[in-house]
Amino acid sequence: MRFASDNAGPVHPKVMAALAAANDGYALPYGDDTIMDEVSARIRTLFEAPEAVVYLVATGTAANALALATLAHPWQTIFCTAPAHINVDECNAPEFFTGGAKLTLVEAADAKMRPEMLRGVIEIEEKRGVHGPQRGPVSLTNVTELGTVYSTEEIAALTGVAKDYGLPTYLDGARLANALAATGASPAEMTWQAGVDAVSFGGTKNGLMGVEAVVLFDPAHAWEFELRRKRAAHLFSKHRYLSAQMLAYLEDDLWLEMARAANAANARLADGLRATGTVDYAHAPDANMSFAAWPRAAHRRLHDAGASYYVWEGALEGDDPDEMLTARLVCDWSASNAATDQFVELVQGKGTAVPVSDRS
Amino acid sequence: MRFASDNAGPVHPKVMAALAAANDGYALPYGDDTIMDEVSARIRTLFEAPEAVVYLVATGTAANALALATLAHPWQTIFCTAPAHINVDECNAPEFFTGGAKLTLVEAADAKMRPEMLRGVIEIEEKRGVHGPQRGPVSLTNVTELGTVYSTEEIAALTGVAKDYGLPTYLDGARLANALAATGASPAEMTWQAGVDAVSFGGTKNGLMGVEAVVLFDPAHAWEFELRRKRAAHLFSKHRYLSAQMLAYLEDDLWLEMARAANAANARLADGLRATGTVDYAHAPDANMSFAAWPRAAHRRLHDAGASYYVWEGALEGDDPDEMLTARLVCDWSASNAATDQFVELVQGKGTAVPVSDRS
Amino acid sequence: MRFASDNAGPVHPKVMAALAAANDGYALPYGDDTIMDEVSARIRTLFEAPEAVVYLVATGTAANALALATLAHPWQTIFCTAPAHINVDECNAPEFFTGGAKLTLVEAADAKMRPEMLRGVIEIEEKRGVHGPQRGPVSLTNVTELGTVYSTEEIAALTGVAKDYGLPTYLDGARLANALAATGASPAEMTWQAGVDAVSFGGTKNGLMGVEAVVLFDPAHAWEFELRRKRAAHLFSKHRYLSAQMLAYLEDDLWLEMARAANAANARLADGLRATGTVDYAHAPDANMSFAAWPRAAHRRLHDAGASYYVWEGALEGDDPDEMLTARLVCDWSASNAATDQFVELVQGKGTAVPVSDRS
Amino acid sequence: MRFASDNAGPVHPKVMAALAAANDGYALPYGDDTIMDEVSARIRTLFEAPEAVVYLVATGTAANALALATLAHPWQTIFCTAPAHINVDECNAPEFFTGGAKLTLVEAADAKMRPEMLRGVIEIEEKRGVHGPQRGPVSLTNVTELGTVYSTEEIAALTGVAKDYGLPTYLDGARLANALAATGASPAEMTWQAGVDAVSFGGTKNGLMGVEAVVLFDPAHAWEFELRRKRAAHLFSKHRYLSAQMLAYLEDDLWLEMARAANAANARLADGLRATGTVDYAHAPDANMSFAAWPRAAHRRLHDAGASYYVWEGALEGDDPDEMLTARLVCDWSASNAATDQFVELVQGKGTAVPVSDRS
Repeated sequence: MRFASDNAGPVHPKVMAALAAANDGYALPYGDDTIMDEVSARIRTLFEAPEAVVYLVATGTAANALALATLAHPWQTIFCTAPAHINVDECNAPEFFTGGAKLTLVEAADAKMRPEMLRGVIEIEEKRGVHGPQRGPVSLTNVTELGTVYSTEEIAALTGVAKDYGLPTYLDGARLANALAATGASPAEMTWQAGVDAVSFGGTKNGLMGVEAVVLFDPAHAWEFELRRKRAAHLFSKHRYLSAQMLAYLEDDLWLEMARAANAANARLADGLRATGTVDYAHAPDANMSFAAWPRAAHRRLHDAGASYYVWEGALEGDDPDEMLTARLVCDWSASNAATDQFVELVQGKGTAVPVSDRS
Repeated sequence: MRFASDNAGPVHPKVMAALAAANDGYALPYGDDTIMDEVSARIRTLFEAPEAVVYLVATGTAANALALATLAHPWQTIFCTAPAHINVDECNAPEFFTGGAKLTLVEAADAKMRPEMLRGVIEIEEKRGVHGPQRGPVSLTNVTELGTVYSTEEIAALTGVAKDYGLPTYLDGARLANALAATGASPAEMTWQAGVDAVSFGGTKNGLMGVEAVVLFDPAHAWEFELRRKRAAHLFSKHRYLSAQMLAYLEDDLWLEMARAANAANARLADGLRATGTVDYAHAPDANMSFAAWPRAAHRRLHDAGASYYVWEGALEGDDPDEMLTARLVCDWSASNAATDQFVELVQGKGTAVPVSDRS
Repeated sequence: MRFASDNAGPVHPKVMAALAAANDGYALPYGDDTIMDEVSARIRTLFEAPEAVVYLVATGTAANALALATLAHPWQTIFCTAPAHINVDECNAPEFFTGGAKLTLVEAADAKMRPEMLRGVIEIEEKRGVHGPQRGPVSLTNVTELGTVYSTEEIAALTGVAKDYGLPTYLDGARLANALAATGASPAEMTWQAGVDAVSFGGTKNGLMGVEAVVLFDPAHAWEFELRRKRAAHLFSKHRYLSAQMLAYLEDDLWLEMARAANAANARLADGLRATGTVDYAHAPDANMSFAAWPRAAHRRLHDAGASYYVWEGALEGDDPDEMLTARLVCDWSASNAATDQFVELVQGKGTAVPVSDRS
Repeated sequence: MRFASDNAGPVHPKVMAALAAANDGYALPYGDDTIMDEVSARIRTLFEAPEAVVYLVATGTAANALALATLAHPWQTIFCTAPAHINVDECNAPEFFTGGAKLTLVEAADAKMRPEMLRGVIEIEEKRGVHGPQRGPVSLTNVTELGTVYSTEEIAALTGVAKDYGLPTYLDGARLANALAATGASPAEMTWQAGVDAVSFGGTKNGLMGVEAVVLFDPAHAWEFELRRKRAAHLFSKHRYLSAQMLAYLEDDLWLEMARAANAANARLADGLRATGTVDYAHAPDANMSFAAWPRAAHRRLHDAGASYYVWEGALEGDDPDEMLTARLVCDWSASNAATDQFVELVQGKGTAVPVSDRS
């Protein structure tokens, strides 16, 4: 019952096999490996973007901060939501990489911006000429940090607002695979066809060891991005091991297979929890992540049975067994039906405290 | 009728005289002038802070950004209000000088933080260990950017919250003289005795040509501040001309005399405008600045008569003569009763369009 | 006998008068004053550059760091000499303002780069693709930090090398007036006609209180420079007092008159010192600055008579009265013949210890 | 015959096995994995430093830039040699991570600083008070970038100079294992016992996939380093895969075994090349890297046979077959005797053009 994060799960065996296969003799370092050529070609095909440039980094924060620094000037502000990963979970990495740009928060129910809200915030900004921060990129996340998913139409509406002001849009796709699986949209439809200028195609949360692809649809940014990546110490000498992971991810749409598995596990969990009649969902569990509340007593049962997930610290120590406490549950590709079902049963008060296997 | 800003007015004649007097032969550069020694001694006396270190810079943004950079680490966030000058009027200077720190906004009616709101925002921050921005300094402004004034008790309550979390407090005192004049508090009472760690004592908006004193109550910060000032190109070679302005400001409490004059002009304006029965005050005009609304027709009369002040752009072009439009009015030391009275009469519809002298 | 620095001398009376004249009523802040319009127009005329954009800042370091940051990317290196002000006297301001660019030193006798040396250093740089710093601007200083002067032909040869590699050239003109006075070149000849892309036209070391004009010959940089100036806290609210100084500087070529006076004083000093037969000049005293050595005993006589200039610290305490010790002497516009002659006589051993007036 | 770099070779099979073993179910992310606890404990034992704190990053540049940023202030300068990796191969990463610190070059034959040279350069720096860059850390590299090795005594002499000025010393240990293998010194002897304050213990160039341990001997730096690592996007969510590599590296001194193999291959190569009588060594090939020159004709034979190593570009196209051209050869743990011997034979003119296996 491991639902703490999709970055706590294992690497897919096919990816491990690809790493082993790549470990054969010598390879040119720093991205000049032949596997990377293949990765670039396949991602361009997958995204139907023959001009796009593709770079690999090892962390989602690196992908976000490098892409945003390439799109933003230090005197600008980046428009995002309050729960955005770049706002709350990157210890000022965007500010660091951009050289001191600011983040301006757009109020957003369910972590999804609405066009009118974005427009209003953009309008307010830059009323002061040289004195205020200048308008910069819009940064969206899909799957959002609250587990909701933007449709391609919703993304297009937001990039449309950005374009009205000449602003580029970045899409933080740490869980892009899950968003694509959830909506059925193609990578092209959810990104450049919806007006997105740059996107990260995350693998780390979806069965890879640690690789994110940054896809820049305007190749004019290529050399600047390469210099920024190197200067930030994110260019790997033994780059082939990043390439190999990503190539395995692309092979036979493994990325989609894993994302579908994670989403299905989350749906099973949500169906089960809702059926208990004691669980309130705070946000729509559109993909592989749930934010839901249930009574403290059930949290205690889960805790005693060794379930792992995020809940407000100190929650277990409170007095009232009926108090509703919100949890975050994240399913990865390896979540098993058995673990999911056991979790639900424990919330219902029927479960056993004997842990079952987490592997499907 | 010049109410656009207190930085649009003239320099006080005594300050001009002091500059002329300082222009005598040679002087050691870079702050080693003898006038600066006198300035430091007098400011320590004025603030009753014999250990404090004092530095002069030429702009309010330099004072704010250098002081905050000395108090904050790049991985921290600075707590301030939305209308704070550091948030909206410094083109990311705080982010630049700190090396990428963030600003976290505390909701604040009338631009004045309340302790419970500050505590709530501080509590939310830094729940994520190494992942989130770390809690940094609290930055207050007095007079606030909306013309309201914190009492010393209000400041002490806020610094008390900051101290609960081990955070320092900076006071942006671009209009500190006006706040002191408004409250009757002494410089010591409003700053270190109220828990403030560093303050700017602004002169530029109050009759000087361009000088702000930064007072650091903990001398341990001295050398770092000096290095930051030099590195930011804010150490003046012909420093004596900054020193001379500040010394004239201190002489016979000229700073207080000018601040009282500006506050009195604003009070006269507010009394007059309120008496018209057609003016709504958005915030208490506690010092030398008013935010008030009156009908478009009156704005047009003022405009035709050459009055100068800030109003929402495009306001004059609207159709409805009765629509209430908010203006910002700022009085400086040189505002005349004649100009103030003429302004009020024009709002009443009784004024003449022939401009009268702005000098008292 | 004040030869410590040209920034220790007084402001010219005409400049003081201009400040007093500017102190009349209200003026638009932040560079929107009408005096600035006149300054821009006149500098464009003086430099024969109708498209150039002109900005004022208050320190030479601000001029250098802002101009270089506008011309350089953070991943580049700036080519300069070892004694360059930007290398040794700005406490890493160029590194700060550029966001972390590097300086690469070009060996340079007398602080003057030679084209072949510059070419060699540029060639070595950027041999490593994305791994090494990328080639950035060339930064020259005229008058150099060692008192020598580049001719326009020498500057053109260096900018020619820069252009071979597509690199822009910045000219640190803290003492540009003195270089123009020394060579007889026009501002246009020494700058854009010689291939310079941006220049500072310094006033602070030549009789102003604290103003440097930055002239960007390519107006495409204008808005970025304005944002960088604001973000670095170098945009003055009471800007008219900067404008007024610069306008007085331009009026009747006051800048040239003062520079000629300073150069003449230095020439008189050099002639006198050389005639003593005991003084060795380390570099050609081409403008208003001398680097020369003479015996310790003479330094002691000067010191006892109250002469002020830079010499290696501890020099006076040594034992050998005949040891040659190098001094830096700088003349400003206000240096008097009497002070110069007294200095020479003291070196000769004939001088009196009674100080004479430093003012002509 | 692959001698281009030790980062072009394969990962050791034991490391691959450790990665596979670590890929078992769930693990706490972000360095909270249990393997990391074991790594920290073992490195403290290996370095005989029970108080030291240990962090893993994935690139050598990250290790260098993060450690130096922790030791240096932005207004300081870091003392290093001209060929130092941080100077020529990191695209300004140290300047970026430190927030704009400078590098000051110490002349150094064979890339090894001498104490008297270091002292001289430190002395010259910081003669200008607040105006110049301030003295900062000394950064050494062992094995140096030219393949030479500092003895522990040589390191102690340099850190002694640094300590005379209160400066910390960082040791870039990208090839520390090779230096330890070459000298027989223990990790403690070469680092903290020799006065080193922080060191990177590199694995990427010595058989790992991409891991460097940063060891800070003063635990007071721990939290700042953690925040800097996160803010620079170098904290890995699936951290266990970094930990697993490093643990395998430590197990049974695999690091030493691989370093000895690489050094032995280089020694065999050097012995062979020197025996040909046609090869000049530029620097002592103390560890696993050689800088040596031989005639162009031999380079052509090697090229035709598919040998891979760095040589001055364009070298092969020159006319003179006897011109001596310098190459860089690097051996990794997997270099085979067969490949080494074939290389030597080709230089001698006896070799065959049929490639032999590079794997031992």
